Amino acid sequence: MSSTGFDALETPALLLDTVSMDRNIERMRERISRHGVHFRPHVKTNKCIEVTQRLLDAGARGITVSTLREAEYFSAQGIKDILYAVCLSPNKLDHALRLRQSGARLSVIIDNVEMARRINPQGLTGNARLEVLIEIDSDGHRSGVQPGSAELLAIAEALQSQGMDVGGVMTHAGDSYNCRSLDSIRALAEQERAAVVLAAERLRTAGYSCPVVSVGSTPTALFAADLTGVTEVRAGVFVFFDLVMAGLDVCRLDEIAVSVLATVIGHQHEKGWTLIDAGWMAMSRDRGTSKQAIDQGYGVVCSADGQTLEDMIMVDANQEHGIIARRPGSTAGAPPALPIGSQVRILPNHACATAAQFPCYHPLGGDQHIAAPWQRFYGW
Amino acid sequence: MSSTGFDALETPALLLDTVSMDRNIERMRERISRHGVHFRPHVKTNKCIEVTQRLLDAGARGITVSTLREAEYFSAQGIKDILYAVCLSPNKLDHALRLRQSGARLSVIIDNVEMARRINPQGLTGNARLEVLIEIDSDGHRSGVQPGSAELLAIAEALQSQGMDVGGVMTHAGDSYNCRSLDSIRALAEQERAAVVLAAERLRTAGYSCPVVSVGSTPTALFAADLTGVTEVRAGVFVFFDLVMAGLDVCRLDEIAVSVLATVIGHQHEKGWTLIDAGWMAMSRDRGTSKQAIDQGYGVVCSADGQTLEDMIMVDANQEHGIIARRPGSTAGAPPALPIGSQVRILPNHACATAAQFPCYHPLGGDQHIAAPWQRFYGW
Repeated sequence: MSSTGFDALETPALLLDTVSMDRNIERMRERISRHGVHFRPHVKTNKCIEVTQRLLDAGARGITVSTLREAEYFSAQGIKDILYAVCLSPNKLDHALRLRQSGARLSVIIDNVEMARRINPQGLTGNARLEVLIEIDSDGHRSGVQPGSAELLAIAEALQSQGMDVGGVMTHAGDSYNCRSLDSIRALAEQERAAVVLAAERLRTAGYSCPVVSVGSTPTALFAADLTGVTEVRAGVFVFFDLVMAGLDVCRLDEIAVSVLATVIGHQHEKGWTLIDAGWMAMSRDRGTSKQAIDQGYGVVCSADGQTLEDMIMVDANQEHGIIARRPGSTAGAPPALPIGSQVRILPNHACATAAQFPCYHPLGGDQHIAAPWQRFYGW
Repeated sequence: MSSTGFDALETPALLLDTVSMDRNIERMRERISRHGVHFRPHVKTNKCIEVTQRLLDAGARGITVSTLREAEYFSAQGIKDILYAVCLSPNKLDHALRLRQSGARLSVIIDNVEMARRINPQGLTGNARLEVLIEIDSDGHRSGVQPGSAELLAIAEALQSQGMDVGGVMTHAGDSYNCRSLDSIRALAEQERAAVVLAAERLRTAGYSCPVVSVGSTPTALFAADLTGVTEVRAGVFVFFDLVMAGLDVCRLDEIAVSVLATVIGHQHEKGWTLIDAGWMAMSRDRGTSKQAIDQGYGVVCSADGQTLEDMIMVDANQEHGIIARRPGSTAGAPPALPIGSQVRILPNHACATAAQFPCYHPLGGDQHIAAPWQRFYGW
């Protein structure tokens, strides 16, 4: 199939450039192996066995998930070493234990004493128990306990009183998505490392073994200068990258591996608008670049063969309509001629959010040949 | 099951209050029947046969869809009178014709001469042909041809030259979502009506029959004072309503029929934050209230039994984490105690976007009993 031969795909359709994806995976693999730590990729971005298998082939040791549905799916596919990286709540305990009993080596996280006291009501022992990491707050972004706090040791004590080990500590420097420079990403990576290593040292001093010390976010994983004391790194969006990552200088536009193929359905010529059949249902409502130096609207417009079209972005979106036009302030003149029926590709603000709207990827090889679809799942 | 007895549901879960939904449907039915026009609800909001069946039971004559996948699904369920309300592109023509051949009375829309000239390459006749409406731009919102333009008649002529009838005209006053008052909604409803009736009159004067004159958006459908010359009304989001509609005074908060059930997973007490297991993957990234007088963040927080909690909104969201807190500027004091494991409901900004993230609804009757899930579909 030629590079402009996507006519067999009904649009909107999610394209996955597997050459870029493999390069992105190799870049992360090389970075992490340089530090001599394990890699536990976050599969919330891809929710797809074929993509996850490529991560395992690149040396990943276990996976990170954001839902128990992801854990169920990948465990059924034979991937047993799974970290569920959202604090466990009491109503998910039975489900987590069922996964454990079915053979998954499921680890969970908690960040409070209340949950530590409720983590083992049946008094399970040995491998029947969940492995539990304590979440550390390294950047004030959302959840986690302060690494220097009394509560950290109180959680460990509550776990011990329940007959549970402290499996380790983990943190996520989610604030890296708001950084303004690579230097600030590097500084945040060190802050992330220091927080979780401090927590591990305090726990060990208090007599807990705390074998796992886990960090991760795509920006900090790629730009950390030193990971001394860390045992594993997690990251997810790097596998595809997106406009938010490009806006952080973490990747280039031509490294973004996912795009939405769309078809021109109309024009409002006097406004410079071209209407396409991909709206916010396809792109998601994510406007992550709106806070960055360059606001990319709902996405950057490329030709069908993936070349960016100068200053063309999706300036607005309805459910199944996208409006593409020159970005505000552009001096590039009239928009390129895109006749009814012609196709474009839209690079997304946020790969996790856009990919989630589609039941499958259409994988695209180096020869621009489209292989059979790769299924992905959704829901909880 | 008691009103606080949602423990059997793994969260996040999409609740559908069927009592509110039925009331919302009755309100729209009564409004439209007052005008003596047909009702063709938009099912892009619900994508669910049980909800759509309630609309048909209330007298709907046919449905409106936003994708051919919706058309496929509902046609297979026996609903044959379907308007696909996104301008047809050449690459969807074969699919539309297959639907027609399979027994669906599928109508499509176009807004340009190029597509009119490509609408019947096989020279089909009679009922084998698609029914085609011409889309009219009544508010500059996105697509459609100007009602007073020469192009309107050129499209009709091109259709005729292809052996096609002009099935009618349709418009969508999408700008009603940006109105600031009910008076401006009423004015926009009249503008919507006037545009499409003008287009129909011009076509009839030129000798085309133009039987269908179709308008619709939830705000204009509910508040139109006069629909003289209109034959049918379309609307979708009214079936559930949402915070954007409440912000327009189109509905009250307690009329919103969908909400996301979530569980408390942690706290950052010194910040006044409560963390829950519903983030933007559950709520969607829609921030439609951010441009309204009251910004509701990612949603309004209610107790598990559906009572709003004073000034509590989802102030921020990650993929599977929501942060709920008092809204900025609130004088309500410390947030309510919501212990680990307790449940809340979040009212969404935009019902179409939030519901799309879930594989099913959990229907809730007047006794707060949860019935078996109602499935919904996604994708294209």
